[in-house]
Amino acid sequence: MSGAEDLCRQIEEQGARVRQLKAEQADKEQIGAEVALLVELKEKLRIATGQPEPAKKGSGKTITVKTPKGTKDYTAREMAVRSEIFGKIVGVFERHGAVTIDTPVFELKEILTGKYGEDSKLIYDLKDQGGEECSLRYDLTVPFARHVAQEGIKKIKRYHIARVYRRDQPAMTKGRMREFYQCDFDIAGVYDAMIPDAECVRVAVEVLSSLDVGAFVIKINHRKILDAVFAVSGVPEDKIRPISSAVDKLDKLPWADVRREMTEEKGLSGEAADRIGAYVQLRGGPELLDTLRAMPELMANKSAQEGVADMDLFFRYAAIYNVLDRVSFDMGLARGLDYYTGIIYEAVLVDESERPAVAQPTAARAAGDGADVDESQVRVGSIAAGGRYDELVGMFLASGRGKKRAKDEVPCVGISFGVERISSIVMKRRGDQAIKTNKTAVYVVAPQGGLLEERMRIATELWDSGIATEFAYKAKPSLASQFVACGADVIPWAVFVGKDELERGVVRIKSMAAQDKAQGAGVEVPRADLVAELQKRLGA
Amino acid sequence: MSGAEDLCRQIEEQGARVRQLKAEQADKEQIGAEVALLVELKEKLRIATGQPEPAKKGSGKTITVKTPKGTKDYTAREMAVRSEIFGKIVGVFERHGAVTIDTPVFELKEILTGKYGEDSKLIYDLKDQGGEECSLRYDLTVPFARHVAQEGIKKIKRYHIARVYRRDQPAMTKGRMREFYQCDFDIAGVYDAMIPDAECVRVAVEVLSSLDVGAFVIKINHRKILDAVFAVSGVPEDKIRPISSAVDKLDKLPWADVRREMTEEKGLSGEAADRIGAYVQLRGGPELLDTLRAMPELMANKSAQEGVADMDLFFRYAAIYNVLDRVSFDMGLARGLDYYTGIIYEAVLVDESERPAVAQPTAARAAGDGADVDESQVRVGSIAAGGRYDELVGMFLASGRGKKRAKDEVPCVGISFGVERISSIVMKRRGDQAIKTNKTAVYVVAPQGGLLEERMRIATELWDSGIATEFAYKAKPSLASQFVACGADVIPWAVFVGKDELERGVVRIKSMAAQDKAQGAGVEVPRADLVAELQKRLGA
Repeated sequence: MSGAEDLCRQIEEQGARVRQLKAEQADKEQIGAEVALLVELKEKLRIATGQPEPAKKGSGKTITVKTPKGTKDYTAREMAVRSEIFGKIVGVFERHGAVTIDTPVFELKEILTGKYGEDSKLIYDLKDQGGEECSLRYDLTVPFARHVAQEGIKKIKRYHIARVYRRDQPAMTKGRMREFYQCDFDIAGVYDAMIPDAECVRVAVEVLSSLDVGAFVIKINHRKILDAVFAVSGVPEDKIRPISSAVDKLDKLPWADVRREMTEEKGLSGEAADRIGAYVQLRGGPELLDTLRAMPELMANKSAQEGVADMDLFFRYAAIYNVLDRVSFDMGLARGLDYYTGIIYEAVLVDESERPAVAQPTAARAAGDGADVDESQVRVGSIAAGGRYDELVGMFLASGRGKKRAKDEVPCVGISFGVERISSIVMKRRGDQAIKTNKTAVYVVAPQGGLLEERMRIATELWDSGIATEFAYKAKPSLASQFVACGADVIPWAVFVGKDELERGVVRIKSMAAQDKAQGAGVEVPRADLVAELQKRLGA
Repeated sequence: MSGAEDLCRQIEEQGARVRQLKAEQADKEQIGAEVALLVELKEKLRIATGQPEPAKKGSGKTITVKTPKGTKDYTAREMAVRSEIFGKIVGVFERHGAVTIDTPVFELKEILTGKYGEDSKLIYDLKDQGGEECSLRYDLTVPFARHVAQEGIKKIKRYHIARVYRRDQPAMTKGRMREFYQCDFDIAGVYDAMIPDAECVRVAVEVLSSLDVGAFVIKINHRKILDAVFAVSGVPEDKIRPISSAVDKLDKLPWADVRREMTEEKGLSGEAADRIGAYVQLRGGPELLDTLRAMPELMANKSAQEGVADMDLFFRYAAIYNVLDRVSFDMGLARGLDYYTGIIYEAVLVDESERPAVAQPTAARAAGDGADVDESQVRVGSIAAGGRYDELVGMFLASGRGKKRAKDEVPCVGISFGVERISSIVMKRRGDQAIKTNKTAVYVVAPQGGLLEERMRIATELWDSGIATEFAYKAKPSLASQFVACGADVIPWAVFVGKDELERGVVRIKSMAAQDKAQGAGVEVPRADLVAELQKRLGA
């Protein structure tokens, strides 16, 4: 082997290594090091083969061949895993009677305005090229509410699996991207309290149990209870939104930091912050409702009474739905979005060994003491979230029709699954297991090469019979290349055609599965029976 | 019934009528008339109920509740049809061994630049909000080529079903939209001539035959033959692209109009135009190749020789693939896109009674005589198109790596299906047939109302067994509302729970299918056997 050929081989192997690491979303430093080695090898090859130095960047109109920041391509392997995940999720949604609808990837800008609180700055706008001002959708919920209002729908249970867009600082390795899939399930319509709400949590438990994600807990809270907490703690009306945002960080930050944000950044009094702290660090199961009922100051608040009554019903239904052991009443859960009006929930993965208590309330911890935060309670990651939003559809009815009447309102509750996160967990758990990315069942092989038209004829017959079939796109393929194709694509069956066999009116069928290697040359079958023989083997 | 109530009912009915017409994509005038009636009724109701006039537009911050121009929502009914179509298409793609990949909805702007000829002005740009300049993808082919180059892929057979974006003048009733789905199947890799090309046409025939679209023909031509035609007709190098665009309009315009565009708008000499006209009006089957071979002027051109050799092979393979009766060699087919380098094709629907000749060449018609155009040849509509593009991947390799070597090139051929068009044809053919939009198999009914928790328990058991189940989200639903739900959602089975039956430890199972109405009250089964009894009936 010449030096250049050796270099070529090394470059090919190194390239494969880099692609493999990228596919696994490996550590950036590691990828960087391997890329550097690749560049070095290529430079060696350039010198060895006497090629000129490549043009410097900027010297011509070189373009950057990559996907935009925060986006990525999905390889066949990733798509195979993803389609398996989507299949399971859709299976659950359909088990609960949902239909699916689709909305455009962009909306009129004003449809999205004022729906996402502090995060509105992350909305992607389209360039004004004359015409309407449009933005890429930020979630699937606002477009759903717009659709319900626009079409005058009174009730619908729908799911929607599609990509949404957020101009956030991407963190690809953590699965935080600018373009990512959401899988939403929502129930719209005037129904009795907490029945659809509990079903959404049941749906979440079914989905997450069916996927290979590990242990999880669904944290629950109620916006009306949270409103009451802010009211009785003395938070001024205009500070409720920012204080709520601060509370929402309790899953990532210790209480001391959250308190500091409330008092120093957001100008709340220390006393009010401490009162809030006593409430929002409470968590547990249904019996936490008794704890709340024993708090006269809180229960004097009408909003608190309504929230507690809802949560009482919720726990009753959750017990019937067999999901009580999966939910944790967490008074620190706030959820950032503006549009929630009732129950809110968030599913988080937990370390199997350090699962948060779900059945007994945790005593309120001393406010202001960061060291007191129980690290075992820190979540591994949020993988689904949702809640009730009774006024969102009405916002579009009001503005769209110049009036707003109670009878027009369409209350909604829903849940959204973060599939990027789920996929990357499933991919990681799957490791380097072979994943079949195609559905090919048969490869037509000419061991002595040639016989192109006969291979085409056989493929045509198999296609006509619905059998997924491939063959080498060469007039004279080598035997090795045909075997490599079977192996690389995990194709279970091969049909061998040879000149003398064709003269005898037969072909050979051979299983390509590793455990069947003992079968040797395979089985000869009459050419005319090939389709039937294969169908027998494929169980079709 | 009071006047206002009567008006409400009328408005509701009229609203339903308008929605129905819109769903059917009815004639614009007709919709307009019905909308006007609806507005009139609403105004009557406003006056009857003494409500104030709605705020005039522009007087407040009223927002328009609609989708952006050229886009639409897909209802559950449309999605059910679409998912059936996608299922069939994917089935064919997978039968041919394709894997699927996914790319972002937007690309770096420079990736798309210079790929779409005159249509580049239709590209949607994202607003520059700091960072990279991005545009929505215009098709799936350029992102595919970018992906192949970026990942250093040497061969891949992939399909991709996703939406693309074109800022064109929308014509929704004709299915021309600004956001629409494409279903692409492409084969990339260095293979022997015309083998993947013929397979793409075979894929097109399988897809279109499996869908309920009616008769179709796949027009075929070759860019190299077209290049030769322009060369021997004396078209200057800088006019080839615009003249090619003009030829491409031959399917919509008579030759006289196309000739006028060539001479008057694009400055070609009349003699050159007439020479072109003699070639591009030729069409037929494989025997058209003999006609071409008998034209010494054309065959002296190297490009023509290569194109004719390719077409010869193509027809040989098309015969083996049993698609010869579906293809028509049409020398007027040009295809607008810049990137094609070899065979090009376009599938068009034809009126069953006026199917264009596919087996005998049509004599060249007198150039310049518009009246001579055979109207039976005017296509109903293009529903799939594609071709060979051998240099597109190389464009990204060249620019991405600062060099371009023949060994880096990845030749490609592919076909793209216009699913909007196909869907609207299938929807139209389906008429007002009931389309089940959900998968619900069982509805749990409490004929005397109540029994909410028992209904929930039964639903839980059925969900646990994988049976798609619904029930009324009310504590005390009326019998009528429960029956309406079963009927509206075409749910085949009902489980009836009643107090006395529960006491006796039984429930009733009843088929809700119309033909089973004779069964009366259904069949009583032990409560404990419910799941098993339903599974028996559902064949699960």
